[in-house]
Amino acid sequence: MTTIAILGATGYTAVELIKILLRHPSANIAALTSREEKRPVSAVHQTLAGRLDQPLENLTPQEIANRAECVFCCLPHTASAKVVPELLQYGAKVIDLGADYRLNSVETFETWYGEKHPDAARLGQVPYGLPELFRDRIVGADLVANPGCYPTSAILPLVPLLQSGWIEPSDIIIDSKSGVSGAGRTPKLATLYPECNENIAAYGIGTHRHLPEIEQILSMDRGLSVKVIFTPHLTPMDRGILSTTYSKPAKSASQDELLKVLREFYQNEPFVHVVEHLPATKDVSGTNFVHMTVRATGGRVVTVSVLDNLIKGASGAAVQNFNLMFGYPETTALV
Amino acid sequence: MTTIAILGATGYTAVELIKILLRHPSANIAALTSREEKRPVSAVHQTLAGRLDQPLENLTPQEIANRAECVFCCLPHTASAKVVPELLQYGAKVIDLGADYRLNSVETFETWYGEKHPDAARLGQVPYGLPELFRDRIVGADLVANPGCYPTSAILPLVPLLQSGWIEPSDIIIDSKSGVSGAGRTPKLATLYPECNENIAAYGIGTHRHLPEIEQILSMDRGLSVKVIFTPHLTPMDRGILSTTYSKPAKSASQDELLKVLREFYQNEPFVHVVEHLPATKDVSGTNFVHMTVRATGGRVVTVSVLDNLIKGASGAAVQNFNLMFGYPETTALV
Amino acid sequence: MTTIAILGATGYTAVELIKILLRHPSANIAALTSREEKRPVSAVHQTLAGRLDQPLENLTPQEIANRAECVFCCLPHTASAKVVPELLQYGAKVIDLGADYRLNSVETFETWYGEKHPDAARLGQVPYGLPELFRDRIVGADLVANPGCYPTSAILPLVPLLQSGWIEPSDIIIDSKSGVSGAGRTPKLATLYPECNENIAAYGIGTHRHLPEIEQILSMDRGLSVKVIFTPHLTPMDRGILSTTYSKPAKSASQDELLKVLREFYQNEPFVHVVEHLPATKDVSGTNFVHMTVRATGGRVVTVSVLDNLIKGASGAAVQNFNLMFGYPETTALV
Amino acid sequence: MTTIAILGATGYTAVELIKILLRHPSANIAALTSREEKRPVSAVHQTLAGRLDQPLENLTPQEIANRAECVFCCLPHTASAKVVPELLQYGAKVIDLGADYRLNSVETFETWYGEKHPDAARLGQVPYGLPELFRDRIVGADLVANPGCYPTSAILPLVPLLQSGWIEPSDIIIDSKSGVSGAGRTPKLATLYPECNENIAAYGIGTHRHLPEIEQILSMDRGLSVKVIFTPHLTPMDRGILSTTYSKPAKSASQDELLKVLREFYQNEPFVHVVEHLPATKDVSGTNFVHMTVRATGGRVVTVSVLDNLIKGASGAAVQNFNLMFGYPETTALV
Repeated sequence: MTTIAILGATGYTAVELIKILLRHPSANIAALTSREEKRPVSAVHQTLAGRLDQPLENLTPQEIANRAECVFCCLPHTASAKVVPELLQYGAKVIDLGADYRLNSVETFETWYGEKHPDAARLGQVPYGLPELFRDRIVGADLVANPGCYPTSAILPLVPLLQSGWIEPSDIIIDSKSGVSGAGRTPKLATLYPECNENIAAYGIGTHRHLPEIEQILSMDRGLSVKVIFTPHLTPMDRGILSTTYSKPAKSASQDELLKVLREFYQNEPFVHVVEHLPATKDVSGTNFVHMTVRATGGRVVTVSVLDNLIKGASGAAVQNFNLMFGYPETTALV
Repeated sequence: MTTIAILGATGYTAVELIKILLRHPSANIAALTSREEKRPVSAVHQTLAGRLDQPLENLTPQEIANRAECVFCCLPHTASAKVVPELLQYGAKVIDLGADYRLNSVETFETWYGEKHPDAARLGQVPYGLPELFRDRIVGADLVANPGCYPTSAILPLVPLLQSGWIEPSDIIIDSKSGVSGAGRTPKLATLYPECNENIAAYGIGTHRHLPEIEQILSMDRGLSVKVIFTPHLTPMDRGILSTTYSKPAKSASQDELLKVLREFYQNEPFVHVVEHLPATKDVSGTNFVHMTVRATGGRVVTVSVLDNLIKGASGAAVQNFNLMFGYPETTALV
Repeated sequence: MTTIAILGATGYTAVELIKILLRHPSANIAALTSREEKRPVSAVHQTLAGRLDQPLENLTPQEIANRAECVFCCLPHTASAKVVPELLQYGAKVIDLGADYRLNSVETFETWYGEKHPDAARLGQVPYGLPELFRDRIVGADLVANPGCYPTSAILPLVPLLQSGWIEPSDIIIDSKSGVSGAGRTPKLATLYPECNENIAAYGIGTHRHLPEIEQILSMDRGLSVKVIFTPHLTPMDRGILSTTYSKPAKSASQDELLKVLREFYQNEPFVHVVEHLPATKDVSGTNFVHMTVRATGGRVVTVSVLDNLIKGASGAAVQNFNLMFGYPETTALV
Repeated sequence: MTTIAILGATGYTAVELIKILLRHPSANIAALTSREEKRPVSAVHQTLAGRLDQPLENLTPQEIANRAECVFCCLPHTASAKVVPELLQYGAKVIDLGADYRLNSVETFETWYGEKHPDAARLGQVPYGLPELFRDRIVGADLVANPGCYPTSAILPLVPLLQSGWIEPSDIIIDSKSGVSGAGRTPKLATLYPECNENIAAYGIGTHRHLPEIEQILSMDRGLSVKVIFTPHLTPMDRGILSTTYSKPAKSASQDELLKVLREFYQNEPFVHVVEHLPATKDVSGTNFVHMTVRATGGRVVTVSVLDNLIKGASGAAVQNFNLMFGYPETTALV
């Protein structure tokens, strides 16, 4: 049994995390924090009525580490990096669902996030919590940087094709479509129901903070310097990301060969399924699965991948990392 | 040609009003106000790009009345009643889309709205802007109280049945289902997309401010004292209200007889259609029409009525009133 | 370990059932039937890609019973009753998710379903699969009639109030709002996306087949003859039913007293939570929970209850019955 | 006054067309056809209740031409081309909302549509009904091929950039997102509400029939041979298409220069607005407007354009063509 704390428990990723952990036979939720809320968590997230009535508390890192062996941080950027050093010092292991430890370069972080990094020295040493690529480093880690939702959806289909030299590392276009829950639970005009419903819009073209994260991970292998164009779109659904990517083939490739590359790469992965049909976000909604396929058309390699942004794109991946870090079977509570 | 001002032009009712008035051959939008916004209205409502670039302005009642013969108030409650006296004094006619002049009793207003009424003396003298019931009084009025969206949907099917004595005035149940736009454009947790999408909830049972408005209008005829139970529900769509009402028959009634009562009552009304099938909100979405029907079942008279809460439930009705007050054909810009 | 067959595995209830059973440690899916499909089930339900590739088969009752100890029937009405006698005879236990065994009276069945009942002699002897009311009878049963989705949502809040004499058995109004998945997976104009989206409509007023089912169960206790008015509405969401009921108090009742009645009745039930706030369908979406509350207003007792029509309204309830019939903990695979 | 017939009046484009024509001061709907329906059109499209009760009829081309000066064909492919020759011969002018007369090459038509063209000789002589590009040819035409919805959304932003030599004609990627109404009103599993809601999927990658239409129109100017990759996506909304295109700059271009190219090209167009912000489908929902913008990012020119697939993508464009063909002001009934 492992004791758990969740920091920033009022948001959408936190409630998904709680629901997954309630099904986990070896997780014991010992603390839930909020700076403003003191009500029971079930008053904030009514879906928990009768299932978890623990109060939200404003706790110090030491108090948190006293109660919990594993801390999930669901905090805004820079907020995690302000408490993580202490949490680690007091002996907790940490999974950060935010962006603070994903980028290796302090400079890149500060350019894209516009703030000084509170724990800059640690950047570059924290494993990126995508078990399909970095399982070995995650297993022994005290701190893991849980990936962004868009990056997971784009990285997973592209890495096998890049690594095996089937596509060029330049001129990769990623056109992503996301549900609204990814924008968080803080009331904003842009995410009001009548603004989002019956509506699709692109946003953050060339400026979305997941862009450098995608480029960093795609570049990690073989000394590549991968450059992408990334266009996220807000679409009228709660959950789900579908990423359509367009790459230049590095050599003549049939669809069957490309499918085979993906299939072999992910053949032992419990959560990645390579399919022949064009996958839809609903196929993986509420699950930790990623479905993906590939097409060769019009002189381009086109991939389509889908995931649930709150599960495999956030809380499910976090529990997958938790299972690896604490020695539980990787799929526990996730299938 | 009539000059128009719209007060509180940043909300959903205002943008619908603007779109209708842009189609009106005799309306000239001369002023749009906001206390906070100074941008062109097309920056706030992108749907107006290339169609109306007038700036939002913070104007005094005198400045407004200098520019506009007709003022539409899309302001929160009590805000209208603070400016209406001056607007009238300076010679403008006013259509108030808010709640300030709907109730006849100051006491009822102050009980339900929890604030002192800024223009209490005028209550009881302002025609209720439902042309189907009060056309004669609207025609000559300087100030009209545009009805609430739920009240219009519930009053229209019930009044003919009450007036002709087919249903009892007590124990009327109104179960209403509304789209989210009725809750306004101010960011709130309750109307965030991920809170409303894929979700239905009742709210304000016994406490919604449209309840006394419904009871007042239903009681106006024949000295009745009508009491209703009113349960609004928030449903995952932008627009539309469907009200299902359950009344006790006052005498044995067949469905055909009841349909005939409704049909005769509304036979000359351009915007009310009595239908045999069960109407759906989409049938009237984006229009000023009300569709309604009636059933006799299980010892109850059941009516189902639908309207678009932003059009017949707000801005369309306001333009219908404007047409009557300024001598234009009643359906101008509305069909 | 129990072997399982699912008859009619191409629909929405079947795929939910499969997903729940895949999480069940003691269920082994041994057969999936369809009269027309022969593809692997994952080709029909893409969400199962990589998780269950079993083919759909056209099997005889004997073949089914040879493979499976427990048979879930997800078949249209009268289709179940044509195979159930043989399935029982060959030794299988059966949970019928359809309507064939819910009504006790052959006459009522034939009136409302318009067809001769193929297994009429068995009617009246089959336990109604609502464990909260009939757990004892379900435990030892060979055949259970899984309840309809609307009936579960309406019966659960009303029974405690009826049984304890707080409300009158006559003049009960049930106004229900359902997501579209309840209408099934067969293509029909009425359930096309552009017909249902941004739309609410009432249907089947006084004629819906769940009406006699509700009346039968509500009447079972204390020799009551309960009559209800039932108005279902189709609402733009996949899942969820919210039922608002309006009853006459049999004696003066405060809201606190009424809440206490519900709380005491369900205090030991794992899947029913009585809450003070007004519950929303999303609170229970994807779960086997029912949330409910009660209000006293305007001379009526108003209850609001929510459930997921495919889980507690169908497949979750079926697994709950399965657990009881086969001696597994009742909540297995359901929390 | 011009008499109008609409062939295939039971679909979504037909009902939008009827609603627009009911607002047109010079259009008189004289015939509505269907091969199967004989009910009044308001029974098929309940939104027309009380507004248009004309019966649906099965008429010969001669009967149609006797009644109507202008015929709108809302028929499946090849069905239009079977009746158009006769309609023209009997003196009617025709606007075909289907695909039969869009492509200039019989071979291309037969390759992509898999059927013999019933009126092959006429291909290549019919103006493509995009007034922004081909107004002069439309004005005098007897037959106009109304564009596909996706093509309009992709062609309008790309043509000015291609014509002025700012982007390369090869390697153009068009990633489009459409609402479900574009898929028509015939019941199909793929467009059932529970299949489409909360779901995004790509479809027809490299095989969608709008691809050759886009390539043909983009190639018409300056002897270009434009090749595109076209990926349509089905998204959970009724209406709207957003197309994101990715092109290679032919010369170094700033965003301001590119915006200026678009603005100058469309400066006198009543229905095309070039905006600086990223437009959303809702901005133009229910209107005949197209909003578009352009970005220079990551070595690519990215355009984003939005339209309502049933209005500017079908019936609104058809009425725009009608106005041009019959000498009415181009914006009549469309603003």
